[in-house]
Amino acid sequence: MSGDLLVKDVRPMGGSVTDVRVRDGRIEALGQRLEAPGDAATVVEGRGELLLPGFVDAHAHLDKTLWGLPWRPHSGGPTLAELIRNERRHRRELPPVAQRAGNLLAAYVAAGVTHIRSHVDVDPEAGLASIEGVLEARERFRDRVTVEIVAFPQSGMLVEPGTRELLEAAVEAGAECVGGLDPAGVDGDPVEHLDAIFGIAARHGAGVDIHLHDCGELGAWEVRLIVERTRALGLAGRVMISHAFCLSIVADGVFDELARDLAEQRIAVATAASPRGEPLPLRRLRDAGVAVCLGQDGIRDLWSPYGTGDMLERAMLLAWRSSFRRDEDVELALETATIGGARALGLEGYGLDVGCHADLVVLPGEGLAEAVVSRPPRSLVVKRGRIVAGRRASTVA
Amino acid sequence: MSGDLLVKDVRPMGGSVTDVRVRDGRIEALGQRLEAPGDAATVVEGRGELLLPGFVDAHAHLDKTLWGLPWRPHSGGPTLAELIRNERRHRRELPPVAQRAGNLLAAYVAAGVTHIRSHVDVDPEAGLASIEGVLEARERFRDRVTVEIVAFPQSGMLVEPGTRELLEAAVEAGAECVGGLDPAGVDGDPVEHLDAIFGIAARHGAGVDIHLHDCGELGAWEVRLIVERTRALGLAGRVMISHAFCLSIVADGVFDELARDLAEQRIAVATAASPRGEPLPLRRLRDAGVAVCLGQDGIRDLWSPYGTGDMLERAMLLAWRSSFRRDEDVELALETATIGGARALGLEGYGLDVGCHADLVVLPGEGLAEAVVSRPPRSLVVKRGRIVAGRRASTVA
Repeated sequence: MSGDLLVKDVRPMGGSVTDVRVRDGRIEALGQRLEAPGDAATVVEGRGELLLPGFVDAHAHLDKTLWGLPWRPHSGGPTLAELIRNERRHRRELPPVAQRAGNLLAAYVAAGVTHIRSHVDVDPEAGLASIEGVLEARERFRDRVTVEIVAFPQSGMLVEPGTRELLEAAVEAGAECVGGLDPAGVDGDPVEHLDAIFGIAARHGAGVDIHLHDCGELGAWEVRLIVERTRALGLAGRVMISHAFCLSIVADGVFDELARDLAEQRIAVATAASPRGEPLPLRRLRDAGVAVCLGQDGIRDLWSPYGTGDMLERAMLLAWRSSFRRDEDVELALETATIGGARALGLEGYGLDVGCHADLVVLPGEGLAEAVVSRPPRSLVVKRGRIVAGRRASTVA
Repeated sequence: MSGDLLVKDVRPMGGSVTDVRVRDGRIEALGQRLEAPGDAATVVEGRGELLLPGFVDAHAHLDKTLWGLPWRPHSGGPTLAELIRNERRHRRELPPVAQRAGNLLAAYVAAGVTHIRSHVDVDPEAGLASIEGVLEARERFRDRVTVEIVAFPQSGMLVEPGTRELLEAAVEAGAECVGGLDPAGVDGDPVEHLDAIFGIAARHGAGVDIHLHDCGELGAWEVRLIVERTRALGLAGRVMISHAFCLSIVADGVFDELARDLAEQRIAVATAASPRGEPLPLRRLRDAGVAVCLGQDGIRDLWSPYGTGDMLERAMLLAWRSSFRRDEDVELALETATIGGARALGLEGYGLDVGCHADLVVLPGEGLAEAVVSRPPRSLVVKRGRIVAGRRASTVA
């Protein structure tokens, strides 16, 4: 039946060769020469390749993508405000969100991504149209990749009256998280901004995920406001700070204080491996107990022409930007794209242990670090026991 | 005959569809519905794909690569001195230079690279062995990719007595350029270092190519010493500064003065799109008339696990690190990997005009910027009219 599968001769996380038996979409057994889970079950030869758990993109913008459309030269100015204006000006010219998000989801699936957290724009002009479009696309792809949604006030919240109510309506319509955006730098009132989005989250049992580009001491101070509200509302484990550029540049003492608070409140940090500035101090955050996850951010959209949906490439960019050379460091970058993402998003049953969901990727490679720098095509992608991309089953028992 | 070819239906630099007729290894004609250059000539269908001139890697280290060998975890410390020591310690364990360099040249050819400038280590311990190894590999690949050699004092020159004489011997053995390395930061005496390498260059009609990591005002001052010697010895157009990190951070007035002098003496700058620090100001250098070229730097070696030999990927990294979003900016990054490299290295007959060497790459893509961000596999690679990689000829006239 669908969800039953035997994957033979793979090396979990680059370890020893084993078979993996999947029943009802979960890993039932790991070991040598396992029997197939049933007479009609699909059997795939792994040929000694690497086995990883499915990649997790913890910070995407599915509604923005131009993936699958004819090339569109970038038309925005260099500042954040100009980029926001450029998107507002041109997004009406684009095909429906559901179509574009679907195009990109297909690329994600082919690259072995099995779970995505996508921010989705909400503003008074477009209302909930983008949320509805992504909900439609995620329904269409539900058997291939799971998608969770952050209602995201891309144009600001306080500065765009009506947005606060739309964020709440988006959560009621199916968004799992309330988003925020530079409470000081964009919205001009960090206390009011954070009180509003934490309030919506607390009322609806939703998570919180805040884009924080605000830098230096300003950003650090906003992190403290986020920690305070997480603690006061009992939202430990439900809050994410995306980008968090301030953590790359604050003084060591401030960093240590913030990292301790983030760890205590289980507030995760999402990075997208920014091309500029100091990279996020991955090792120090990890050592402090802070969950760090990785996202593609926008992929070929009105903001930027870059990106492909391949989290292995994104892990390479993160490792390269971090000047990681040793295997254990490169593997740390890969971890942010797999188990780090699962930890940050609180995914149940993620991993390669017996009992975990069978969200699997098989790919050639001598080991994890080599796979990150080589980024080979995926041989097999499995979502909840179903083959969703890559090599077809070579034998059927 | 070999070197005769008709490539049909390609778009040079993303322009209109045309045929390209190649005779004796050079472009003979561009136009609609051209005749093949002879009854026995090979004819390739371009299917409307992009046509670019062959990629130029202007800064490689062929002798260092581990390409094609089993994975070897990185073993060096983080500083320049530790990385130099790590290489000296472990290089004896590696297979011969000619074999490793050949492995990498095959990857370069498949990726459409048709010309490479490689630095090759020279020091008293190894003597000229690496030079000889790369000379052997380049001879073996001479019909597929042209390689020029810089004799490179990786361990320092003044601090490693005997190296100066070896650099001169390397030029006599076939190296086209004399290399240098941080005349202040590594060798401790910039005047003596530069006088020595410029002296060898002047005596032998060789070029000069200096690794300059020294930063800020120190690096800027060394650039002035390089300009002085280029001018005094009449070496305009024969000198390169590799990396030149100092140009990214000096004050505007100093930058303008240095850029003017570099342009006047036709001293080129090679970048490798460093993962850290401020990227080289490409647009400002170009506007000042300075030739800027792109290199992979080391590929999977004892210094770093990264790199693939694909200059289109390197152009993407340069554009991404430079925060280039607009087509004309992304195309500027691509230019450093093609015509910029040819200009910096003084390559004769480079380009897509009638009379140029037929060093050609055909690849899918809507346009140049799209090709950089997508980095599709190469459909066809031609060196001097010979098909050296990609699709086989689909018809023969």
